Amino acid sequence: MRGREAILKVHIKGKPLEPNINLETIAKGTPGFVGADIENLVNEAAILAARHDKKAIEMSDFQEAVERIIAGLEKRNRVLNRMEKERVAHHEVGHALMAMAMPGQDQVQKISIIPRGIAALGYTLQLPTEDRFLMTESELEAKIAVLLGGRVAEEIVYGDVSTGAQDDLLKATDIARSMVRSYGMSRRLGPLSFERDGRPLFLRTGELPQRPDTSEEVLRQIDDEVRRIVETQHARARELLEARAPLLREAARELLVKETLSGEELRAVAARMGFPAA
Amino acid sequence: MRGREAILKVHIKGKPLEPNINLETIAKGTPGFVGADIENLVNEAAILAARHDKKAIEMSDFQEAVERIIAGLEKRNRVLNRMEKERVAHHEVGHALMAMAMPGQDQVQKISIIPRGIAALGYTLQLPTEDRFLMTESELEAKIAVLLGGRVAEEIVYGDVSTGAQDDLLKATDIARSMVRSYGMSRRLGPLSFERDGRPLFLRTGELPQRPDTSEEVLRQIDDEVRRIVETQHARARELLEARAPLLREAARELLVKETLSGEELRAVAARMGFPAA
Amino acid sequence: MRGREAILKVHIKGKPLEPNINLETIAKGTPGFVGADIENLVNEAAILAARHDKKAIEMSDFQEAVERIIAGLEKRNRVLNRMEKERVAHHEVGHALMAMAMPGQDQVQKISIIPRGIAALGYTLQLPTEDRFLMTESELEAKIAVLLGGRVAEEIVYGDVSTGAQDDLLKATDIARSMVRSYGMSRRLGPLSFERDGRPLFLRTGELPQRPDTSEEVLRQIDDEVRRIVETQHARARELLEARAPLLREAARELLVKETLSGEELRAVAARMGFPAA
Amino acid sequence: MRGREAILKVHIKGKPLEPNINLETIAKGTPGFVGADIENLVNEAAILAARHDKKAIEMSDFQEAVERIIAGLEKRNRVLNRMEKERVAHHEVGHALMAMAMPGQDQVQKISIIPRGIAALGYTLQLPTEDRFLMTESELEAKIAVLLGGRVAEEIVYGDVSTGAQDDLLKATDIARSMVRSYGMSRRLGPLSFERDGRPLFLRTGELPQRPDTSEEVLRQIDDEVRRIVETQHARARELLEARAPLLREAARELLVKETLSGEELRAVAARMGFPAA
Amino acid sequence: MRGREAILKVHIKGKPLEPNINLETIAKGTPGFVGADIENLVNEAAILAARHDKKAIEMSDFQEAVERIIAGLEKRNRVLNRMEKERVAHHEVGHALMAMAMPGQDQVQKISIIPRGIAALGYTLQLPTEDRFLMTESELEAKIAVLLGGRVAEEIVYGDVSTGAQDDLLKATDIARSMVRSYGMSRRLGPLSFERDGRPLFLRTGELPQRPDTSEEVLRQIDDEVRRIVETQHARARELLEARAPLLREAARELLVKETLSGEELRAVAARMGFPAA
Amino acid sequence: MRGREAILKVHIKGKPLEPNINLETIAKGTPGFVGADIENLVNEAAILAARHDKKAIEMSDFQEAVERIIAGLEKRNRVLNRMEKERVAHHEVGHALMAMAMPGQDQVQKISIIPRGIAALGYTLQLPTEDRFLMTESELEAKIAVLLGGRVAEEIVYGDVSTGAQDDLLKATDIARSMVRSYGMSRRLGPLSFERDGRPLFLRTGELPQRPDTSEEVLRQIDDEVRRIVETQHARARELLEARAPLLREAARELLVKETLSGEELRAVAARMGFPAA
Repeated sequence: MRGREAILKVHIKGKPLEPNINLETIAKGTPGFVGADIENLVNEAAILAARHDKKAIEMSDFQEAVERIIAGLEKRNRVLNRMEKERVAHHEVGHALMAMAMPGQDQVQKISIIPRGIAALGYTLQLPTEDRFLMTESELEAKIAVLLGGRVAEEIVYGDVSTGAQDDLLKATDIARSMVRSYGMSRRLGPLSFERDGRPLFLRTGELPQRPDTSEEVLRQIDDEVRRIVETQHARARELLEARAPLLREAARELLVKETLSGEELRAVAARMGFPAA
Repeated sequence: MRGREAILKVHIKGKPLEPNINLETIAKGTPGFVGADIENLVNEAAILAARHDKKAIEMSDFQEAVERIIAGLEKRNRVLNRMEKERVAHHEVGHALMAMAMPGQDQVQKISIIPRGIAALGYTLQLPTEDRFLMTESELEAKIAVLLGGRVAEEIVYGDVSTGAQDDLLKATDIARSMVRSYGMSRRLGPLSFERDGRPLFLRTGELPQRPDTSEEVLRQIDDEVRRIVETQHARARELLEARAPLLREAARELLVKETLSGEELRAVAARMGFPAA
Repeated sequence: MRGREAILKVHIKGKPLEPNINLETIAKGTPGFVGADIENLVNEAAILAARHDKKAIEMSDFQEAVERIIAGLEKRNRVLNRMEKERVAHHEVGHALMAMAMPGQDQVQKISIIPRGIAALGYTLQLPTEDRFLMTESELEAKIAVLLGGRVAEEIVYGDVSTGAQDDLLKATDIARSMVRSYGMSRRLGPLSFERDGRPLFLRTGELPQRPDTSEEVLRQIDDEVRRIVETQHARARELLEARAPLLREAARELLVKETLSGEELRAVAARMGFPAA
Repeated sequence: MRGREAILKVHIKGKPLEPNINLETIAKGTPGFVGADIENLVNEAAILAARHDKKAIEMSDFQEAVERIIAGLEKRNRVLNRMEKERVAHHEVGHALMAMAMPGQDQVQKISIIPRGIAALGYTLQLPTEDRFLMTESELEAKIAVLLGGRVAEEIVYGDVSTGAQDDLLKATDIARSMVRSYGMSRRLGPLSFERDGRPLFLRTGELPQRPDTSEEVLRQIDDEVRRIVETQHARARELLEARAPLLREAARELLVKETLSGEELRAVAARMGFPAA
Repeated sequence: MRGREAILKVHIKGKPLEPNINLETIAKGTPGFVGADIENLVNEAAILAARHDKKAIEMSDFQEAVERIIAGLEKRNRVLNRMEKERVAHHEVGHALMAMAMPGQDQVQKISIIPRGIAALGYTLQLPTEDRFLMTESELEAKIAVLLGGRVAEEIVYGDVSTGAQDDLLKATDIARSMVRSYGMSRRLGPLSFERDGRPLFLRTGELPQRPDTSEEVLRQIDDEVRRIVETQHARARELLEARAPLLREAARELLVKETLSGEELRAVAARMGFPAA
Repeated sequence: MRGREAILKVHIKGKPLEPNINLETIAKGTPGFVGADIENLVNEAAILAARHDKKAIEMSDFQEAVERIIAGLEKRNRVLNRMEKERVAHHEVGHALMAMAMPGQDQVQKISIIPRGIAALGYTLQLPTEDRFLMTESELEAKIAVLLGGRVAEEIVYGDVSTGAQDDLLKATDIARSMVRSYGMSRRLGPLSFERDGRPLFLRTGELPQRPDTSEEVLRQIDDEVRRIVETQHARARELLEARAPLLREAARELLVKETLSGEELRAVAARMGFPAA
């Protein structure tokens, strides 16, 4: 419980809270919540407070958020059918194998098909999840490839794709978009920034934020470049996972049985199948 | 009545309610309401509360909503003319036959031309209506084909179409649009997301939500792909229902007489006409 | 007076009213108002309340609305000059003859050049005006043709057009637009919907409503199709009314004398001139 | 004074007024105001009230408006230099001669170069100024030609143009735009309406009004047609006024001396110069 | 001091003021302020009041504004380096020589490189600065040429340009834009107005102002014409000032020494150098 | 502490403060803060106040801001890994060498890889940082080249780039954009301004600011010119730093050891390596 309270403190940093918020009470009321659930909890509470037009999060928002997350978890456990569970397992193993195969990626610590919070049907955990302040072009590319690993696994195993990759595609596209628009990582568009300044300070009602008024031609070039980046990493993930298809199937089989695999267990399967970590 | 109260509890989850809301009273005041009517009721009450700028739904909103739905039901029953009733019957049978013919679709439990709630002139019920968390590309395509089944039935029987397919077309287009924009299911546009993040948290007055500033060319490609998907499923529904035209006419005839057909009755007609479930 | 009170009750349904509204008082204060005037009255009162930022319509809004409508009626009667009255007569007969000639249209009950409410200089009444829940493509096309009948009559009789068709053109274009955008009635655009969902529930300040971000090419195709539909019906109205030009002139002459013609009187003129109802 | 009070009553119709407004006091405080000044006064007061975010016009708004208009009149009289007065005279005579020459236009009653209200440096008065409910295409064209008469007079006499035609051009373009967009008077765009519905009733904060989402191609066609209409009337005004150039110069000379010419005086000059009213 | 109070009265016309504003106190507290500083002061105070969301300007806003302007003046005097002062001198002489050379321009009364208010590093004063109600096309062109004179002087003397012309370019472009959009002074776009009506009276929350929905093609034509006008005047200023380059350098030299030159002193330099006023 | 209080006074100028703000207390609570941290502190406090919809900054905002900045500094120190520190060192030396090499740039006073405030991982300080009121085209170009120096150093040393240049690219692009849009420094677009006036005084709710409605073609020309300017300076920085590659590596090595280099130390390294200041 002390651990949950500590994690709570981390996530409420910078969030407007009513003075009567009692973190201990919240920690008590969330047995079994892992870190991601608590992060989820704080975000949900903030969204609920905003939805009720409150300026600060109140205790009642936390209570409502706790109920929602528990409901979400229960619902998830109850209704995920066999076909879905299998697909989630291959999807998560896809992410994990990409993380193992890409140079410079953090070690995989755990993969799981036990739903976590409201949004995720399964998850892959890489460690150390240190906060990075600088990332290079090749690191960002590798991150995109890992994100696409889940979808590519579905392509290889099932020959088609599911709605489960929606969030991965959103994140992968966002990274590629930032590479082109903010980090000057497209040769074709050059070392320019196409972002507007993100700090609309004291913006008055009715004023529009400054827009760089980008021309249609540049918008098209940005779209082309973003797509080129994502598709290059997709091809890379495809090549890597096709070469590891037997391992993908075997690890997913094991994950379905155990529901959670540690990094060591995954690496053991890989070694057993003759795929030592790249 | 207990059943209605239970369904009420399901649908008010996550809706802001005044503390004095008495669900038992509401359940008492809605004799004859089926599940869909109750869902409708809760939505109507929420809309009414929003329209009056209330932060939470009050008892009076439920009362007004009940009156509206009853009025809607009565009005519907009163004025649907013969021509309209016939068209609705063919339309609903079109949906049902598509649901029976498409692989992997849930069983048809009931079709009816008794109006249900405000929006629907008839309805087709598939079971089990389990909450799905993952859907594959081919399942989404089948769903589009089922949605278009009503319209295609009208095309085949009457040679023209009516306004009755408006909602089906909206839903079918929305699914196709999500396939292209969010799920990366268009080969032409690749495994990218063209959605903006849906959670504008603490958006300040006057700020515009972040827009991905998609280029005209990509907008056109999205439009092309969405259309290709919908038209492919339309052709599929057309082919399937043309092959079942006698069954379509016979089942509609029976539906007009009985107003409601169970799944077994529909399958019996199909068997009698020599069209065993695909 | 009881009749006016009853009509009032119909039109205030769903409008926010202050509790002290006395319908009997309003009904007493509106001698000579027909149904359309009362509908107008309720709408005006609602607009006035909105303009004063009230959440509900107050008695004073009804009083102001009554004065406005009476003022509008008087002004209208006073200033419509001879040239205008004649043109209105031909315009209304144009609508009526189209309604008589188009297959499946409801019977014309009355045409009048006595101004009605604020907006209409004359009017044509078709009966039964039953609420329809489904309309077919050909019925919508016929409706457009009837709407254009007034303008076409002006073209034939005067060789030019006036501002009087503004509202007809708006309605005809709106129907054609819905055929293309919502009902999937354009072969060229296919069975898709190009509408956004009309229920922005709990939209927060500053948020933009979801836009389907339609591409320029599709916007152009929609414009082309809308125009094709309207122009086809215009040609149809032109052909029909040119064939009935003598009847058009004769009926307008009679309408100018009597100011109101019943459906039977109009049909009698038609029979006398050798144009039996189509 | 009673006259001014009566005119006040006409113009405050439909404007939100504080109950303590005393029209008699306002009428007393505006000696020398003509009808147009009073209309101006009411509009100014309404603008001032809106600028101070008041829901209704207060007495203080009228007082401020009176001071502004008097200041405007004085300033105008003081600073209009000789060159400007001459140009205004030719400009007004240009309008008046066009009004006399166009078929079906109302008689010119007065032209003046005594500034009137804040906005006008001179004015031309046509009578009767009856409220019209229908206008034909050719009447609207004539109105555009009369509006352009002032500018064309400057072109003929000075060989260049001044900023003085700004408001005329705005009005002429607006009429042409309405002919194309609302009245279906462009053969090229057909009998369609390109207007949005003007009554956004109970629009909620943050919602955008419905836009017809016109395509770029149609916008271009509208622009082309609007320009064709205005330029055709400009050529017509040019031809008419060039044929009357000596009369234009002579009447302007007389207007500069007398500052105001009655319709009879203007027609007398025309007759003397051998230009009988067309 | 009385003079400053009088100027204050002129500039606060039409500005919302708290009743307790004491103009005498303000005038006392602004020793050394010239007319332009006082205009600046009133504008600053209005901006500050708006920034604090006040409906009227309070005494404290004036005090803050006075401090800002004094701070601005001191800062300016302190930090303008030698290179900047020289460039400002040539820039201002460029304006003055253009004003002397253009036909029909008002006489130059004074040029100065003593900063004035916050925005200007130097200034050129033309007299009489009478309010004009009409300006002809050629007068507007001359005004653009005078505005560009400062920049052209920099081009000639330094071979490059500085940021100092920002405001001149904005004003020159605005005039050219109004010539094309509002005054019908472009032959290519014709006697039309492309402005929207500037008086959005009682605009309701969330409504967008009416837009004329100009097509891309017309926007491009407007851009072309605006540029043609500005570049023509730029070439004219270049030709005129190149012919007067020795005078430009000599007058700037003298201005750097004296910091202010009267119109007579400037004309004396011109006569001495053999450049009599054009 | 007095020094911090003095710097605080400078930065709070023009910011709305609650009367109870005690600057001495704030100065006491920020030991070790340098000028940039204090500027950061004031900005953070203003942002926090705005986020809580306060009209003025309160003491609590300053306290929260102090905690955030300290947290930011600690986090930064804690987690910047070796690879990141090295890259930051080369990046900063890249800026510094460009500043030394470009003509007319102010002297480099200090470079540091000790994080400063929240936003910067390292920094380069040029002195004197006098406020400039005029900058010439070539000075702005040099400024862009210095801004790109950090990124170019990464390109040369690592062969790829990182996210660390995001802010530099934004600033460099902004300068180039202002050169084209506001200062008339693009030959291709001419001496025009493409900016809107930046002072929307008393803008009313719902009104849009005036837009110059720039055509797509001009937007494209602006984009082209902005890119040409940035890429020209990028090539220039590349050429200069490639010629100084050994110095770049050596100075970065020294900076990594000492964490801060004074201008003299940097110039000493340069002299030692045979690269005297350009």
